[in-house]
Amino acid sequence: MSLIVMKFGGSSVGTTERMQRVARRIVENRDAGHKVVVVVSAMGDTTDDLIDKTRELNPNPPAREMDMLLTTGEQISVALLSMTIHALGREAVSMTGWQAGILTEALHGKARITDIQPERIHAALNDGGVVIVAGFQGMTDTGEITTLGRGGSDTTAVALAAAIEADVCEIFTDVDGIYSTDPRVVKNARKLDEISYDEMLELANLGAAVLHPRAVEYAKQYNVKLVVRSSFNHNEGTTVKEEAVMEQGIVVSGIAFDKDVVRISILGVEDVPGVLAGVFGALADGGINVDIIVQSGVMEGKADFSFTIGSGDRDKAMAIIEGNRDHVPYRETTSEDGLVKVSIVGAGMVSNPGVAAKMFRVMAETGVSIKMVSTSEIKTSCVIEAGPLQEVVRALHTAYGLDTAGQVFVGGPSERR
Amino acid sequence: MSLIVMKFGGSSVGTTERMQRVARRIVENRDAGHKVVVVVSAMGDTTDDLIDKTRELNPNPPAREMDMLLTTGEQISVALLSMTIHALGREAVSMTGWQAGILTEALHGKARITDIQPERIHAALNDGGVVIVAGFQGMTDTGEITTLGRGGSDTTAVALAAAIEADVCEIFTDVDGIYSTDPRVVKNARKLDEISYDEMLELANLGAAVLHPRAVEYAKQYNVKLVVRSSFNHNEGTTVKEEAVMEQGIVVSGIAFDKDVVRISILGVEDVPGVLAGVFGALADGGINVDIIVQSGVMEGKADFSFTIGSGDRDKAMAIIEGNRDHVPYRETTSEDGLVKVSIVGAGMVSNPGVAAKMFRVMAETGVSIKMVSTSEIKTSCVIEAGPLQEVVRALHTAYGLDTAGQVFVGGPSERR
Repeated sequence: MSLIVMKFGGSSVGTTERMQRVARRIVENRDAGHKVVVVVSAMGDTTDDLIDKTRELNPNPPAREMDMLLTTGEQISVALLSMTIHALGREAVSMTGWQAGILTEALHGKARITDIQPERIHAALNDGGVVIVAGFQGMTDTGEITTLGRGGSDTTAVALAAAIEADVCEIFTDVDGIYSTDPRVVKNARKLDEISYDEMLELANLGAAVLHPRAVEYAKQYNVKLVVRSSFNHNEGTTVKEEAVMEQGIVVSGIAFDKDVVRISILGVEDVPGVLAGVFGALADGGINVDIIVQSGVMEGKADFSFTIGSGDRDKAMAIIEGNRDHVPYRETTSEDGLVKVSIVGAGMVSNPGVAAKMFRVMAETGVSIKMVSTSEIKTSCVIEAGPLQEVVRALHTAYGLDTAGQVFVGGPSERR
Repeated sequence: MSLIVMKFGGSSVGTTERMQRVARRIVENRDAGHKVVVVVSAMGDTTDDLIDKTRELNPNPPAREMDMLLTTGEQISVALLSMTIHALGREAVSMTGWQAGILTEALHGKARITDIQPERIHAALNDGGVVIVAGFQGMTDTGEITTLGRGGSDTTAVALAAAIEADVCEIFTDVDGIYSTDPRVVKNARKLDEISYDEMLELANLGAAVLHPRAVEYAKQYNVKLVVRSSFNHNEGTTVKEEAVMEQGIVVSGIAFDKDVVRISILGVEDVPGVLAGVFGALADGGINVDIIVQSGVMEGKADFSFTIGSGDRDKAMAIIEGNRDHVPYRETTSEDGLVKVSIVGAGMVSNPGVAAKMFRVMAETGVSIKMVSTSEIKTSCVIEAGPLQEVVRALHTAYGLDTAGQVFVGGPSERR
């Protein structure tokens, strides 16, 4: 008998038929003798519908009241899922976040979990029922209702799994698992059997929509075994855990990429202490997410540096830099769009010299010029022109032996909240 | 400075425009220097929409899970109303039933309030905000979410008013107050300025849809001053309190009536102890609401008795009596439909002999034959044929002096939950 946490996203319960399929899937585990705790998100478009209701009443509603409003979406899901399990003749008990003992910071809209008091969950499990917990929500120690922000339901599932010491936390989604690259780009992309937390984090930050980074971090911290699998079939999925089995000769697990990247360069910046902090502090205050930052050196007391952002933020970023010119003087700015970022990720890279060099060689053979480079212990990223993206990803996938033997990546629509 | 509870039903907040009007109305009281606690129901059709969602998933859902589901309706209302008040530049804090300290029995779907712990409400009021409480819901002492059943939001408002010792509990509805009879039947029906709890109870039980009897009982028990008034205008409304001012010469406050009444008679019943308990126990178990019961005497060890029910229950009631014949033997049953019940209600009746006699005389003058009579200290009811209903109500309204000087009753669509 195992203790299993199963997490289902909003699209998995978006229709009557899907809700019933999820219920049957839960009952299978329960009938196999396992204790089951389920975490579920708001159904389909519920959250968007609730947000729509606020527009005419208050375009800028207080975060506390938004949490009060939005948490009803998951409460509806858990009640309906519990009823559906009852209709199959099995016991189930739904719980809101506060009923499940999920305590958070007093930060509305993006609270972090501070503690879980699982006594009530254990009691309900011991009574023989399935426990259905509302994802994405918790309560402060003064009894205020909070939401966890993006990736919230994944985090709820992982945190609950840690708190009740579950044997596994299964994240059900609409893809079969984690792939060695986007199957829409490389036909023979392979589903990975296993991947480490760190590899998953690098892939997730590069754009993987299957599992939220915060949940992966939480899983790594508390050593929770994750399985990412499809809610549409019974395939094995991908296991995310501390020490993934390294397949022979595989040092790169997956190829990830980001589209719609813009490079901005600030040239001739006076090199005084705090200049980088000045520029990037202003961009952060403006809500702009900066990815790669490269400074290539200082010449005659002046520095040039470049960074990448999403293409939607370009005009805003340029305005912020211009508006900040009194504090951070510079000669000129340039920008380039129509770029992409390609990354190779693998825990084996750190102990295998020449992995990055092979990436640059493949780029060269494909006739691609590299605009920017960034490296970490388990990842190397190159910014290149968008045109040859598909060709480059395929060439890298082949060069690192991923066409034949399996490891990792990314892609497919999310059902994250 | 007063402490005021304001209760708004679901139709009062059913659209953006109505929600905004309610918010302005609340802000008026707050800006006049009062402390304001608001109780609100689920918006418009929300509850019905939620119930619809359950049909395909589980036609017979557990009451606990229904409460979990339906309480989201009020939670949505309070969050949106709070946001709307914020949009007017005033502070407001929404609260679920459990956050407002409303404790109930562990009886899902129809719990009664056992206690209110208003510390959190007082704290929020002292912070200067309007407090918006979800009606119709509470929590058991083990942290289960419950609903209060019919009339729940009225009861929440009255119970809160009692707990925080409010100066007044205003029930906003879509009529101007309590009328001396249905204005659709008698053109010169008059809005009452005041009415006693007991009169209101008699009128409510006779079909008044404006204020739920349970809430009136609660108000009487804790001596909460109620005002029933329109959410569409600023007219005075009707005050319901212990000792309503009796207008000179007015012994009857209002004329109420029930349509679609069926009389069932059981003839030749053996008169042994427990026979009434047998019949009416079986009907109660069948969920049939019996109104007037008349037993006219015993002849040769056999009794005849008659009772009234709503016309929709007729076939079911006949089947129950037939099915119970072994336990309660009888000679025959008869029934008569197309009947109505007309009642005169007034606290002045008890000290004024001849009030009922005048009613019978009016009936006789109108050529109406009385089928059944039932009396209490403040009410006399007659069951008559439906045909002359309008004529009889008008004649009674005139005979008891209600056309010219004011008191009471009833009618208008409800926005109760």
